[in-house]
Amino acid sequence: MIKNKVRQLWAEGKPALHGWLSIGNPFTAEIMAAQGYDAISIDWQHGALEYSDVLPMFQAMRASGVTIGARVPWLDPAAIMKALDAGAMQIICPMINTPEQAAEFVSYLRYPPHGQRSFGPTRAAYAQGGNIHVEANTEITGWAMVETKEAMANLDRIAATPGLDGIYVGPADLTFSLCDGKYPPGFDREEPEMIEALQTIVRTCQKHGIKAALHCGTAEYAARAIDWGFNMTTVSGDTRLLASAAAASVKAFRDAVSATATEATDDKGGY
Amino acid sequence: MIKNKVRQLWAEGKPALHGWLSIGNPFTAEIMAAQGYDAISIDWQHGALEYSDVLPMFQAMRASGVTIGARVPWLDPAAIMKALDAGAMQIICPMINTPEQAAEFVSYLRYPPHGQRSFGPTRAAYAQGGNIHVEANTEITGWAMVETKEAMANLDRIAATPGLDGIYVGPADLTFSLCDGKYPPGFDREEPEMIEALQTIVRTCQKHGIKAALHCGTAEYAARAIDWGFNMTTVSGDTRLLASAAAASVKAFRDAVSATATEATDDKGGY
Amino acid sequence: MIKNKVRQLWAEGKPALHGWLSIGNPFTAEIMAAQGYDAISIDWQHGALEYSDVLPMFQAMRASGVTIGARVPWLDPAAIMKALDAGAMQIICPMINTPEQAAEFVSYLRYPPHGQRSFGPTRAAYAQGGNIHVEANTEITGWAMVETKEAMANLDRIAATPGLDGIYVGPADLTFSLCDGKYPPGFDREEPEMIEALQTIVRTCQKHGIKAALHCGTAEYAARAIDWGFNMTTVSGDTRLLASAAAASVKAFRDAVSATATEATDDKGGY
Amino acid sequence: MIKNKVRQLWAEGKPALHGWLSIGNPFTAEIMAAQGYDAISIDWQHGALEYSDVLPMFQAMRASGVTIGARVPWLDPAAIMKALDAGAMQIICPMINTPEQAAEFVSYLRYPPHGQRSFGPTRAAYAQGGNIHVEANTEITGWAMVETKEAMANLDRIAATPGLDGIYVGPADLTFSLCDGKYPPGFDREEPEMIEALQTIVRTCQKHGIKAALHCGTAEYAARAIDWGFNMTTVSGDTRLLASAAAASVKAFRDAVSATATEATDDKGGY
Amino acid sequence: MIKNKVRQLWAEGKPALHGWLSIGNPFTAEIMAAQGYDAISIDWQHGALEYSDVLPMFQAMRASGVTIGARVPWLDPAAIMKALDAGAMQIICPMINTPEQAAEFVSYLRYPPHGQRSFGPTRAAYAQGGNIHVEANTEITGWAMVETKEAMANLDRIAATPGLDGIYVGPADLTFSLCDGKYPPGFDREEPEMIEALQTIVRTCQKHGIKAALHCGTAEYAARAIDWGFNMTTVSGDTRLLASAAAASVKAFRDAVSATATEATDDKGGY
Amino acid sequence: MIKNKVRQLWAEGKPALHGWLSIGNPFTAEIMAAQGYDAISIDWQHGALEYSDVLPMFQAMRASGVTIGARVPWLDPAAIMKALDAGAMQIICPMINTPEQAAEFVSYLRYPPHGQRSFGPTRAAYAQGGNIHVEANTEITGWAMVETKEAMANLDRIAATPGLDGIYVGPADLTFSLCDGKYPPGFDREEPEMIEALQTIVRTCQKHGIKAALHCGTAEYAARAIDWGFNMTTVSGDTRLLASAAAASVKAFRDAVSATATEATDDKGGY
Repeated sequence: MIKNKVRQLWAEGKPALHGWLSIGNPFTAEIMAAQGYDAISIDWQHGALEYSDVLPMFQAMRASGVTIGARVPWLDPAAIMKALDAGAMQIICPMINTPEQAAEFVSYLRYPPHGQRSFGPTRAAYAQGGNIHVEANTEITGWAMVETKEAMANLDRIAATPGLDGIYVGPADLTFSLCDGKYPPGFDREEPEMIEALQTIVRTCQKHGIKAALHCGTAEYAARAIDWGFNMTTVSGDTRLLASAAAASVKAFRDAVSATATEATDDKGGY
Repeated sequence: MIKNKVRQLWAEGKPALHGWLSIGNPFTAEIMAAQGYDAISIDWQHGALEYSDVLPMFQAMRASGVTIGARVPWLDPAAIMKALDAGAMQIICPMINTPEQAAEFVSYLRYPPHGQRSFGPTRAAYAQGGNIHVEANTEITGWAMVETKEAMANLDRIAATPGLDGIYVGPADLTFSLCDGKYPPGFDREEPEMIEALQTIVRTCQKHGIKAALHCGTAEYAARAIDWGFNMTTVSGDTRLLASAAAASVKAFRDAVSATATEATDDKGGY
Repeated sequence: MIKNKVRQLWAEGKPALHGWLSIGNPFTAEIMAAQGYDAISIDWQHGALEYSDVLPMFQAMRASGVTIGARVPWLDPAAIMKALDAGAMQIICPMINTPEQAAEFVSYLRYPPHGQRSFGPTRAAYAQGGNIHVEANTEITGWAMVETKEAMANLDRIAATPGLDGIYVGPADLTFSLCDGKYPPGFDREEPEMIEALQTIVRTCQKHGIKAALHCGTAEYAARAIDWGFNMTTVSGDTRLLASAAAASVKAFRDAVSATATEATDDKGGY
Repeated sequence: MIKNKVRQLWAEGKPALHGWLSIGNPFTAEIMAAQGYDAISIDWQHGALEYSDVLPMFQAMRASGVTIGARVPWLDPAAIMKALDAGAMQIICPMINTPEQAAEFVSYLRYPPHGQRSFGPTRAAYAQGGNIHVEANTEITGWAMVETKEAMANLDRIAATPGLDGIYVGPADLTFSLCDGKYPPGFDREEPEMIEALQTIVRTCQKHGIKAALHCGTAEYAARAIDWGFNMTTVSGDTRLLASAAAASVKAFRDAVSATATEATDDKGGY
Repeated sequence: MIKNKVRQLWAEGKPALHGWLSIGNPFTAEIMAAQGYDAISIDWQHGALEYSDVLPMFQAMRASGVTIGARVPWLDPAAIMKALDAGAMQIICPMINTPEQAAEFVSYLRYPPHGQRSFGPTRAAYAQGGNIHVEANTEITGWAMVETKEAMANLDRIAATPGLDGIYVGPADLTFSLCDGKYPPGFDREEPEMIEALQTIVRTCQKHGIKAALHCGTAEYAARAIDWGFNMTTVSGDTRLLASAAAASVKAFRDAVSATATEATDDKGGY
Repeated sequence: MIKNKVRQLWAEGKPALHGWLSIGNPFTAEIMAAQGYDAISIDWQHGALEYSDVLPMFQAMRASGVTIGARVPWLDPAAIMKALDAGAMQIICPMINTPEQAAEFVSYLRYPPHGQRSFGPTRAAYAQGGNIHVEANTEITGWAMVETKEAMANLDRIAATPGLDGIYVGPADLTFSLCDGKYPPGFDREEPEMIEALQTIVRTCQKHGIKAALHCGTAEYAARAIDWGFNMTTVSGDTRLLASAAAASVKAFRDAVSATATEATDDKGGY
C-alpha cells in the first residue's frame, strides 16, 4: 500500500502543509496537486461538491503523489467509507463533540478487529496498491474536528480516543460556538481567548500523543501555528485563492489603466 | 434584449476588461463573475471544457450581469450557433486567416438577411429576453482572431469584413507563426517586431472602424495595450490565477515556517 | 444578505405560490424560475436528482430573483447544511414526527447560539451576499413536514418548537398514514377526515404563530387551501406539468387528425 | 434489427406524430417517451444539450419502444455518425441548401456501398439488435431540412437525391430567409406565401416519392399540415410544453386566489 | 406494477443469478443487462458511483427486463427511499447486525401500514407502472446483509424480522469479522468454519421461511452455494470481469508475440 | 515533456500493445490502464463518449504511465487540438482517403513552423510537463486510418505524407469498402484479398519509413499481424472484454448449476 506522506514528515519531525479544495472539478484538483502541498483534502462538507466530484478529483491528483483526503459532510459511515474506498488516505470528520462520537468515527475508519469499516476498496485497490486490508488501519489518518464549546469541554476525553490520529481545528465554528456568536466567524483568530483555546488543544494533543492541525487563512498565521506546536496546517483553499487573485488582477488593471489614462491626458490631450 | 456592456463602454469611450475561463465548472464561473470584469469569455477552444460546461457556466454567470461570451473551438457553424443559443453575447473565433473565413464567421453570427444563423435561441430566449431575432444582430459582437503569418498578410482585408466587430489578437500563436517558432509562445511580447505587429493591428482596426482586443498576461501589459489603442484586453485567466496564487501561498508557507524554524533553532534549540 | 420573498409577502398579508422541481436539470429550473412563482423548491427527497443537480439548479435560478429552497431527503444534518451552503433560503424537512425531531431540524438550520449549523457558506456567500452569519438565522425559513399519524398526534408540540417557521403538509403520505392505507395516496384530498386534519393543522400553526403550507395538485384546490388559512401552497410540479401538457398535446393531435381524416374521407374519398 | 415505426405507419398509410426534446435530461426524455408519440427526436442543434446528453436520453427512451432520432447540429459526419452509433433511427440535418449537401448528408448515413458511414455501432448494437450492417441502410430515415431561400430554389434537385427519405421543414428559418426577415420567426405560418411554400414542398416530395415533415406549434396546425399531405409533424416540444403549462398554472393560481380573496372580502371581511 | 423476476424464479423452485455493478456508467449497465442475468444490483456502497449514476443506470437497464436493484451505502432511509423511487425492485442493506436494525430496514422499504416509506415514486411510476402504492410492498425484495460476528450472534432474530425477504451474505466482511482478521478478506471461502457459517445461514433462513443469497467470485463456487441451499448468488461483477478479461488479453498477446518472435528467430533469423 | 513509450519500444525494435476504450468513464479507464498495455486510446469516434469523458479519462490514466491517445471522430481541427490540449500523446484520425487529407491531418497535429496547431496546452502543460512547444512535434504520434477503397488506391501517396508517423488499419471498414459490402464488417479477416491488403499496407509503410498498426479482435491474430510486420496492434477493447467475460460467467453459472442440479437429482432425489 502507498505511504501517507504526512506520517513520513512527522517521523522526520516536520510539519505538513495541507491544501484545501472546495471546487468540484478534477482539473482544478490537478492544478492544485501540482503546487507543492504535502497533502490535500477535498471539502465534501462545505465545498460546492459531492461524491461524484470526489472520485474524479482523487483520480486527477493520483499522479502527483500528493497525499489525498476528504473532509466528510458529517459523522456518517456511508460517506466515510465511500471516501476511503475512493482512495482517501486521510479523513477529517466535522463536529466531533463527545468521546463517543470520536470512537464511532474511528470505528468507521478501521477494518476489524479495530473497527467496523466494511471491506470493498473498489477504487482504492487500484490507487493504493496491495495489502490494504492490513496497512490501511495504520496508514490512513483520522482527524476529529473540535469546533464547539461542547467539544472543548470534552477535549481531553476526545483526545484520548484509541485509534484517533489527531484533532483538526475549525476556527470559524469554534469561535462562533465558544464565544456564543460574539465574534464573526473566520480564520486566523487574534482574540486572546481563542489563541488560548488553540494552544490548549495543542497541549492536549501532545499529552495524548496525537497530532493537532489548524485551518488557517494565511501562511503567516500558519507559521505561528506551527510554532505553537501544530503538526499540520491548511492554508487558504482553491476558492479563496482564485477569488482573491482575480480581484487583485481586476484592481491592478483598473489602477494601471486609470494611471495610463491620466498620464495620457497629461501628455496627449485625451484618450 | 439585454445589452452588451462592452458596446456601452465603447460608446462612453472606455476600454473593457475581459476575463477568461478555462476551467469547466459553473462555480468557478460564478466566482469569476463576481470580481468586477466587464465581460468574460469561456475558452471552448483551449479550455478544459466543452458545450456541456458552457451552458451551466453561462447560467451561473447570468445573475452577475457581466457580459458573457465564448471563444469557439474553430470556425464551425455548429459550435458558434450553439454558443449563441446558449446565451453568448460575444463570440471569439480562432485562426481567421483570410477574408473569406472572416465573412463565413460573420455569416454564422447573424440572422437573415445579414447571415445564415439558424433561429432557435432555446436558452438565450430566457437569458437575453425578447426581440432576439431583431437585436441579436446588433448587440452580439463577433471577434476574428488574427494569430498567424497568413492572417497578418491578409489583415487589411480581414478588417474590412462587413459585420465584423473586431480583431482579437492571440499573441502566443501570432508570435509562434509570425516568427517561425523563433520565440517561445506566450503573452506580453516585448520583441520589437511583435510590438510593431500589435500596433499595426490597432491601426488597421481603427482604419476600418472596428475594435481591437489583446490577450494579456498582466494588468501592466494590458494598460500599455490600452494605451496603444486596444479597446478590450483580457488579463490572465482562471487557471493561471489559481495556479499562481496557490504556488505563492505554498512558497509563503515554506518561507515562513523555515524562518520560524530557524528562529526557533536559535532561540529554543530545536523544534 | 438577500431577502426571503416569502417572508415579505407574509409581512404584506399575502400568501405565497410555491413551485416544485423534481427534474434534475438547470435548464428546466431556469425555465420554471421564469414563470412567476414566489418561491421554488427542489425536491431532493423524491425528485430524480441529487446534490450534484441542486447546485447548478440554484445557480440557474439565481438571476430570476425567485426565492429558492430544497426539500431535503431526510432529517440529516449533512443534506440540510449542504443545501444551505449551496444557497437555499428555505428548507423543507420530511417526516418530522416528534417535537424532538423538530428541534433537531431547527438546530441544523441555525448558526450558534441558536443552533449548530456549521459555518462555511461556500456558494451562498456569492449568491446571498454579505452578513450571512447574522441574517441567515432570520431570513431562512424552516418547514417541518407533518405527514404521519404520529406527527398528527404530536402536532401541537411540533408546532411549538422554537425557531420553526412553519408546517408543510404532504397530503399523500399524511392520508396514507393517517387512514392506514384506506385511501390511495395523492394530492387534493376530499375525504372529510382529511379536510378536517388540514384545517386542524392550520389552526394549530396559527395558535403557535407559525405558518402552514400545503402541497396541492391544482390551482383550484390551492385557492381553497389559502382560504382555509394556508400561507403558502405548492401547485403541481415540473414533471407533472410536462407530462400532462405532452399527453394533452398528443391527444389533441390524434383527435384533430382523426377529425381531419374523417372529414377528408367524407369530402375527398380518402387520405 | 429493430424496426422504424414511422416507416411502418407510412406503410399503413398513416401519418406520424413526432415529439421534440430540447432539454438535456434522461428523465424528461423518459417522461416524454411515455406520452404516446410515434417518434421522438432530440434537438442537438438548438436544444440545450450535447452528445453527452443524447446518449443517456436514448437509453432512457429505449424501453418505451418509441422510434428515436436526433436533429444534428450541422452537416457534420462526426455528429451524424455518433448519433447513429448511439442508436438513432432517424437523423434530421439542418440547413441543406443544395443537392450536393443533400448527397453528402446521405453518404454519412449509409454504410458502403451506398455511403461512407464508418462501421462501429457501439451502443446501437445493444439497442438495435443484430444485422445492423445490412438493415441500417433501409430502416434508418434521413431528413434534409429545407429552411432557406437557397434551399427552396434547389428544392426539386434536393428532393431528387438518391437515398434521401424526406424533407423536414423548419418554418421559423424558412420564413426568416424566404421573406428576408419581413416576418418574425415562428411556427404555424399563416402568410399566404408561406402556406404556398409548404404546399410546394409537399408536392415536390410526392413527385420524387419521398416524405415531407413539418415542425408545428399546435396540434391544430399539424392536422392541417397532415391534410396538406405532410407525412410527419412535430407538435411543440418539451421546453414549450413545460413553460406554457407552468405559466398557465401560475395564472390559474393567481386568478383563483384573487377570486377567493375578493369573495372572502365580501363574505368574511378580509383575509 | 411490473413483476420481480427473482420471486417468479423462486415460485418455480429455481435459483436466481445476480449480477453486480460497481462502475458508475449507464453504458456498462446496459451491456451487463444484455448478458442474461436474472437480476442485477448496483453497488452504491462500495461501487465507484453515487445516486447520480444509479438513476441513469436504472434507465439504461429498463428495456432489458432484468430485475434491478441496489445495495445501499448504509442503513439510511434517504438512500433506501431514493433507490426505490428511482425504480429499484430489490434493496440490499449492508451491516445489519441486530434485529432492531433489520426491522428499521424493513420499515423504510414498505409503505404504510407496513412501514414508513414515503410516497413519491417519481421515476418508478414510469418504470414500474401503476398501482405501486399497493404492490410495491409485495413485489420489492429486501435483503439484510449478515457480515459481522455480531450479526451471526443475532442471526436467528434477524431472520425472524417480519417483512424481511432474505439474508444476503458478504463473505469478505463476514470472514474478516468472524475470524478477527485471521484470514484476508475475499469471496469463495474454503475455511471449514466459514463454510459452516454459510450453511448455518441457509438453515436459519429456511427455518424462518426466508431466502438466502451469497456473493461469490466464481460460477463454480456459486453452484456449490446453490447446492447448499442458497436461493440467489452473485457471481463476480463488472470491475472484476473487465480487469481479469483485460489482464488475460494482455498476457495472451505477450505470450503469443513472444512465441512468434522465438519462432521467427528460429526460422528467419530475427524480427 | 514526457516521453512516448511507443516510440521507445520501436527504438528497441519491439512492437507495442495498444488498448482501446469505448466506455466513457474514468474508472474503467483507470482499471484498463493498470493491465499492462503499452498505450491506450480512447475511441472518441465510435465510443459511447465525448470530450467531456476524454478529459477525466486522461486524468485517471495519468498515474499509470501508459501512453495515452485518442481516435478523434473525424478529420476536424477542433477535436484533434482539444484531444492534444487534454494530454493525448497519440492521435488516430479515421477515414483518411487522400494525401491532401493526410497532410491536413498532420498540419493540425504540429506547431508552427511544421503545422498550424494552436498553442494552448491547458491541461497538457500539467500532464506532459515543460517544453511542449518544442517537443510535442516529435513526441506525439499521428496515425492516419486507411479504411476505404479510395484510401487503398491512394496508399502510396498517403504514406509519403511528411510528418505522418503511421497508418492505422480499421479492418471492419476496410473490408466493407474494399469488397463492396461482400463480407460483413469485423476484425481478424481471413479472406485472402484482405490479408493481401494488410500486407500491402505494411510494405508500403516500410517503404516510406513509417509505422503500421492494426486493430485486432484477438491476441492470436495480433501476433500474426506483428509477424507480418505491424508495429502496433490493438487487441479487443473495454466493451468487448466486459461483455464477453460477463456472458462467459453467466454461461458458466448456468452450466454449473444445471450440472449440480442433475447430479443432485441423481444423488439426492431432487433439489
